[in-house]
Amino acid sequence: MFGEILQSIVDGTSGALGAVLMGYDGIAIDQHFKVCEGVDLSLIAVEYSNVLKEIRRTAEILGTGAMEEVSVKTERLMVIIRTLGSEYFIALAMERNGNFGKGRYLLVREAPRLREALA
Amino acid sequence: MFGEILQSIVDGTSGALGAVLMGYDGIAIDQHFKVCEGVDLSLIAVEYSNVLKEIRRTAEILGTGAMEEVSVKTERLMVIIRTLGSEYFIALAMERNGNFGKGRYLLVREAPRLREALA
Repeated sequence: MFGEILQSIVDGTSGALGAVLMGYDGIAIDQHFKVCEGVDLSLIAVEYSNVLKEIRRTAEILGTGAMEEVSVKTERLMVIIRTLGSEYFIALAMERNGNFGKGRYLLVREAPRLREALA
Repeated sequence: MFGEILQSIVDGTSGALGAVLMGYDGIAIDQHFKVCEGVDLSLIAVEYSNVLKEIRRTAEILGTGAMEEVSVKTERLMVIIRTLGSEYFIALAMERNGNFGKGRYLLVREAPRLREALA
């Protein structure tokens, strides 16, 4: 179930390297990764779960409402994260020149299905 | 100089609330804010400087290259941040339905001028 949705997001986004459904505790529920050299996508997702906790805390302090989406672009990689309630999130990693808009759209589109399946 | 560039970014982005040029130490160099109730943009920028440090540290651990851009969407606000070398960044805050693409484009376009002026 989760794996199919993750695969559809990765396959539908040009430049995508993989997607992972994860808890804020850094434990993955499911993932779909393309083979890619020199990039450890599992590690990336775990490390970003810490970043998300920091952002969530910041949003709470600032009273700007719940965090919904975070994206980070580095020299080698783009990561888009969409929150799925208070316990889980989905992260999509892509090449830095991948189709950011399409990836973002697919995460928005699939989020309700993932939330429903997680409940 | 900085003020004019910041204003041009805010004025050019529909839904923008303000922009700030800031060091990672949370000290603002210059800022241009529209009057907006219930949102303390200075505080938001200071709090996000901590988030950026965490993301920078994460990118270093992961070896995914230097952080270039971070965006965070919450229920009430969208913040786009663009790094300007290792010491400074520019943050643009906008309403959650503001023109994300245009804001992002203007940050990319003005980053070289800001870097030059900061050097």
